[in-house]
Formats: sequence, C-alpha cells, structure tokens
Amino acid sequence: MSEKLNLQPLSGMPEWPPAAQLIFERWKQTVRESYGLFGYTPLETPTIERAEVLMAKAGASTGKQIYRFAKGETQLALRFDLTVPLARFVALHQNELAFPFRRQAIGPVFRGERAQMGRFREFYQADADIIGRGSLSSSADAEILALAAQTVKRLELGSFQLQISNRKIVMGFLSALKVMDQKAIIQLLDDADKIGPKKLQEELRLLRLDTFEIRKITKFAQIHGNFHQVSQLLLRLDVDNALFNEGLEELHRLSQHLEALRLDPAEYQFNMGIIRGLDYYTGMIYETILLDHVSLGSICSGGRYDNLVGNYGKTKMPGVGCSIGLTRLLAQALAAGLVSLEQKTISQVVVVPLTAQLDHLHDIVNALRQSGIATEVYLEAGGMKKALKHAADLGVAYALIIGDDELAQKKLSLKNLVTGAQESLNLAQVINTLQS
Amino acid sequence: MSEKLNLQPLSGMPEWPPAAQLIFERWKQTVRESYGLFGYTPLETPTIERAEVLMAKAGASTGKQIYRFAKGETQLALRFDLTVPLARFVALHQNELAFPFRRQAIGPVFRGERAQMGRFREFYQADADIIGRGSLSSSADAEILALAAQTVKRLELGSFQLQISNRKIVMGFLSALKVMDQKAIIQLLDDADKIGPKKLQEELRLLRLDTFEIRKITKFAQIHGNFHQVSQLLLRLDVDNALFNEGLEELHRLSQHLEALRLDPAEYQFNMGIIRGLDYYTGMIYETILLDHVSLGSICSGGRYDNLVGNYGKTKMPGVGCSIGLTRLLAQALAAGLVSLEQKTISQVVVVPLTAQLDHLHDIVNALRQSGIATEVYLEAGGMKKALKHAADLGVAYALIIGDDELAQKKLSLKNLVTGAQESLNLAQVINTLQS
Repeated sequence: MSEKLNLQPLSGMPEWPPAAQLIFERWKQTVRESYGLFGYTPLETPTIERAEVLMAKAGASTGKQIYRFAKGETQLALRFDLTVPLARFVALHQNELAFPFRRQAIGPVFRGERAQMGRFREFYQADADIIGRGSLSSSADAEILALAAQTVKRLELGSFQLQISNRKIVMGFLSALKVMDQKAIIQLLDDADKIGPKKLQEELRLLRLDTFEIRKITKFAQIHGNFHQVSQLLLRLDVDNALFNEGLEELHRLSQHLEALRLDPAEYQFNMGIIRGLDYYTGMIYETILLDHVSLGSICSGGRYDNLVGNYGKTKMPGVGCSIGLTRLLAQALAAGLVSLEQKTISQVVVVPLTAQLDHLHDIVNALRQSGIATEVYLEAGGMKKALKHAADLGVAYALIIGDDELAQKKLSLKNLVTGAQESLNLAQVINTLQS
Repeated sequence: MSEKLNLQPLSGMPEWPPAAQLIFERWKQTVRESYGLFGYTPLETPTIERAEVLMAKAGASTGKQIYRFAKGETQLALRFDLTVPLARFVALHQNELAFPFRRQAIGPVFRGERAQMGRFREFYQADADIIGRGSLSSSADAEILALAAQTVKRLELGSFQLQISNRKIVMGFLSALKVMDQKAIIQLLDDADKIGPKKLQEELRLLRLDTFEIRKITKFAQIHGNFHQVSQLLLRLDVDNALFNEGLEELHRLSQHLEALRLDPAEYQFNMGIIRGLDYYTGMIYETILLDHVSLGSICSGGRYDNLVGNYGKTKMPGVGCSIGLTRLLAQALAAGLVSLEQKTISQVVVVPLTAQLDHLHDIVNALRQSGIATEVYLEAGGMKKALKHAADLGVAYALIIGDDELAQKKLSLKNLVTGAQESLNLAQVINTLQS
C-alpha cells in the first residue's frame, strides 16, 4: 500500500481521541435522556436527501455550503441541519403521526464552510422540536425553554442564562421605523456581537439609516431584563405597530408560563439583542450563554417557526424547537478547560490473569460484567508488569489481579492504580467497590 | 413553495416511523452497553473520508458502490464500512493509543448498491474491534466470539448459533487441491446459500474443476459440528498443507478458549461452509444465525484480519472484529414478526391538565421527570376528551388527570388506557405505579 496516503481526517471534520469521545458520548446520552423525559421521541432521517428538497429550504448562504453530488440521474445532498428533514418527514407522514408531534434527533450535519476555529464541516446537532397540526399552543414555546434549561443544566457546564426575544417585536419595531431592507438590518443585529458597536453603526449608516434611526435601533437591541423591565423600556419606545403589540403580548404570556414552570429567574432573561439569523423564525426566539464563558457565544438556541413545515404541504403546521451544537460545544469546552479528559477507556477495571485456570478466571469476569461493570481482560503475554502498565496507560482506576493463590483462597487482589493501595477482597466486595 | 417536490426519502435509505425507531434506539443502546461491558470504548470517525484512503481498501465490487464527490480540489467519499476508517485512525494515532486498542462504533455507512429487499444504501453497522500493535493474542478471537454471543443474546431475538471457521483452513485446503483461481472459488462458496447446490456445481465446473475436485470441495464445505467432529472429518480429507495445519491448530486452541469462556455449546459450532467474502480476513471467521429464522442469513459476523491496519503503515497491527448490520436486522425482524411495534412515543404518561393552577401542575410534572418518568403534557385546547384521544393515538399506557379537585385533595387520577381503570392516588403512588 502506498505510504503517501494522507491519513489525517479532512479539515473541519473532527474525530476525537477516546478520552474526549467518552465525554461526547456522555453528553449525547444526557441530552437524549433529558429530551426523552419531556416526551420527545427519537427520530432518524437519512444523511442523504434529495438536493431539491434541501435547496427549497436553504437560505442563500446555506445553499452555497451544501455538499451536493449526483448518483445516476438523482441530485443528492447531505443534510445541513436536522430541522429541514424533520419538516419533510412531518409533511410526508402527517396522516400517520399523532399531533402535537414531539421528536428529538441527535446526529451529524454537513456544511462546506471555510474551516476555521470553532467552525466545522461535519458536526453534531442535538435537536428537540414540537410540531402542531393546524395550530400549536403558545405553551409549547415555554415547554421548549424549560427543556433547554433543564438539558443545559444536566450538561454541568456552570451557570447559564437563556436570552429570550420575539421576532414579532423585532419586525414590528423595524416596520414602525419605516426602514428599508429589514433583512439586512436583522443580519447586522444578529452579527452585532461579532462586529462590535462601531462597525455596526457604520454598516447601518451604509444602509442609509439616519442618526436618529441608528440611535433608536441600538437602544432597542440593548433592552434586556425581566419582563417588567423589558416591557417598560419597550413601551417607552412608542412603537405604533400591531405586530409589535402582538409580540409584546406573547412575551407577557410566555413570562407567566415560565414562572408557572418554576424556571429559576436567574436562568433566563428577555433580551431584544437576540435576533437569530435564520429566516424561518416567526415568534419566540432564544439563545443560551454560559455566564462564566460568555465568549463561547450561544450553546443552545432555537425558536418558533409557524411556516416551515406547512410550506411543504397545504396544512399549517407551526413548530418550535431547540438545538445544541454538540461538536462545537465540545471543542470550546475542551479549549476553555470546562471539561477535563480523564480515562481513555470505557473500562472500569483491567483484569490481570496470572493463572492457567481460565474457566475460573472467566467466571469472575462474567460476574463482574453481569453486575454492569465494564471489564477489560489483559489477554497479551508479559505478565503483571505489562498488564499494569497497560491499565495505567488507559487511565483506569483499578486492576484486579487473579492468580492461582487468589483462586484457591477465593480472595482477589484489587489494586487502586491512583493510590497504589492493594486490597484482598472476595468477589462481592470487589463488585461493591467497583460499583461505588 | 412548489408542491411537486418529492418528499419520499431516497430509495434504499430508510427512515423508521416512531414505533420502529424506538426499537432501533433500544437496540443501539443494548449493543453499546454490551460492547462497553467488554471494555470496547466508543470512537467516532467522520462520515466523509478522503476518497483515496477508502479506495485503497475497497475491493473491486465495493469500490464501484462508493459515493464519491469533489469539494474544491479534494476528492471526497462517504465511508462504506466502519473498519477501514478504524484502520486509518489506528495507523494515524498509533503513538497515542494504548494497545491492545478496543473500540466500538455504531453508525451509518453508505453503499450505492442497486436497492432491493434487504439491501440498503444507507445503513447502520455496529462494530467492535480489538487491534494489537505488533501482535495480538489468539485469546482476542475468543473474546470477540464471546462478545458477539453475549450481544446477540441481549437483543432477545430467540435462539442463535455462531458458525465458526478459519481462513487458513480454507486457503490451505484449496492450495492442497492445487486449484487455480482460489478467489473465485471462495466467492462461490460464500454465495453457496444464495445460489443453491446445483448452481454451485455448475459454476465450479465453469472454473474447470473436475468431478473429484468438486466433490471434495462440496464435502469440505458441508463439514460442521463440535471441534471433535470437525477435526475428525477434516483429517479424513488427507490435506497435506502447512497453512491448513496451522488453521486446524488455531481452531483447536479457539475451541479450548471458548470452553473456558463458558460459552453455551448450543450457541456455537464449527462450520467449514462459512467463508466470508471480504479479502482481508486471515484467520478466524464467523457468522451468526437465528436458529428459528435461518433464512435471515447472518445477523452478526466478522473475523481476524492481520494486515488491514498494518497496510497503512509500517508496523504489523493485527485485529479481530465483530459487526451487526442493525438496519438490515430491524427490517428483517419487522418483516418476520420477531419484534412488535407498540407505542409511538418515548413518553410513559400523558398529563391531562384540567386546571388553571399551572404552577402546582408543573410541580407534579417536574417531580415525575425527576423520578425518571418520561412525561408529556397535553398543552393544546380541547379538554379531557382530546387529550385522552391523543394519549390513545400515541399508544401510551397511562394518562394522569390533574384538575382543581385533584390538586385540592392531593389525589391524582391515574387512568390505565389499556384496561380503562382509573385510580385516585397520591403523587408517590403515581410514581411507583409508573416506575413498575
């Protein structure tokens, strides 16, 4: 075989070493369970979709990033998110599903972006969405926020805060200002954190906004706090617009819902600076920041989309959802030291066989595994020394030494590889120690 | 949006309805845990690989099936199995990994085959492999078989049997026969079940084998039983070949290992009809059949490959592995009635809110979720009748009715939707009932 083969994974497509992958697996499991406790059922759609189905929903910038290829006469594409395939699935199966339809999906999506720090071309999203048929109660918005807060809490990344807004307020505010090109302004506001206030003002001026309008927009985007504070500040803006008022009314109802859901007031606030770039949001929108690591940006975000699914069919099918970019989050958490790499294996113990009585040895190994203890047996030659070195290389906390003496006395030698201490224990005691 | 969009998933790319997906999720979890108990650590490699890396390992027939495309100047391809990416990863990271390296991987792979019943273009494989550096004990072969047996047992698909052979015996036997084109014969023997004995004989004749040789080959492929029976029959073939003898010696040692591992003798046999089509196997090979559903073919297979990883680098890195084709297995199990579709949701209970005291309602809901009970709240308008119909549509066993009376009396109404019985219980009793 040629030795010139490049064995590195492609740029922007991460593969984690075992220690990091173990954290990633734990996170996937945590999110899966958390979404499940709210009744969001797993659904998987194919990685490959018809290109025309994805293109119909991709905005201009996403469209350019889609991996496309042909097989025979069919134009194929790799999914760029999990929401568009959900919309297709729900439109296709609307007569078989029970609505509201709650689903979760955790899997890789693909975007051919210019690879850079924090940007991936293949990355996991972990989504939960609820879709109604004909209508969907505004309580669903509150449920999604409660689910997001609960799930982020379970990831144990420190204190966090949901930042909540409403697209109707944003759009109503801009309409009342009578500015042109609302889409461009929204894009700029969404990027405000990245480009900074100076650049934002310059760009807004390029859109031919006057000083008064720019001041008003900047002031609007800085409004944040609890509902009472935010609504007071919004009312002072004197906006005369029906959509704005509708959004404010929704925000009010949402704030009451969140109180009833017993959300910790420290874990959310309303923030008019939250915009969300995607076109399809129509109501509540939110992002989530880690309070001690604000620079990581949003780690969990989403919102209400009343027309995404309906566009594929005739029935109105409003939805609201939540998405965690797990791959990006792991890369950031590792870089920020928010998680630490510990062992390189799923094993809890390495068994060191120093006996030819393999049947008795395996009775013990089988008993450990039946007790739910992940057990690796060192099968290679080299005796105790090599086996213990292997266990240390893996970062496992315990080695269980089984020789003829141990089998005769029914006492096994359990060595704590962190402290170096070694105990002589019977099987039940070994299991107890390893389970605790 | 155009209504002409084809919303069906692409041919050969399954998406399961929620009830089937729930089984699939349970299986993935079962396999993940089972592999984990043997110390096989999760590893994920990207879906997309450099085309040249995959092509270097794909046989002629697999090569044609690879999904390839270009992004800029890079030739990309979707992985067609999980073993080749493992080989690349191990060759790349051999200085950071601890050997023997045990890893599991569960994920989709892609093959542009002609789609037909039981053949998929995107399908899950669930693999466990152990790779040595320089050498790998033959005990690893036995461990993989024990892991395979344990995992298939946990899937609860009825009685099964591992069918075990050794490539050295097969190759040694064919070498001793001095037949040309061993690869073509191996391919035919591997297909023997599909094409039937008559067609097999015809095809062998086309390869210019004489009647004596064909009889001997047919007889060889029919040898099966325990080690004693198989070795007697093999010795009677009078094969004078060193590789053959080496294979027989390996089979002997393996049979001793399997006894020590306490494998149930009913759950495995040696069978010279097992060939495995893939080029890279060099020693032990095996397949697994369901004894009551032999027509499903092998549901779990693998073997020893001494040169696959080493080919990417300089060091010899022998490996042995196990693979379950989960997608194909689910399709077959559904068709054969081996699994039954029950509920359409992960939820264990649907809460029916008949009160405006949402805070008290959510205290109860939060308590259920904290007890690990997947709880869906019916948030839409329509009252009891619509909520109970929704719960019935989902196939959930219980509905929990919470009205003002229930809150005042601290007694909740738990309705069993299967029997129709309704009980008045306090929260602790509700949790007990739902947990059992």
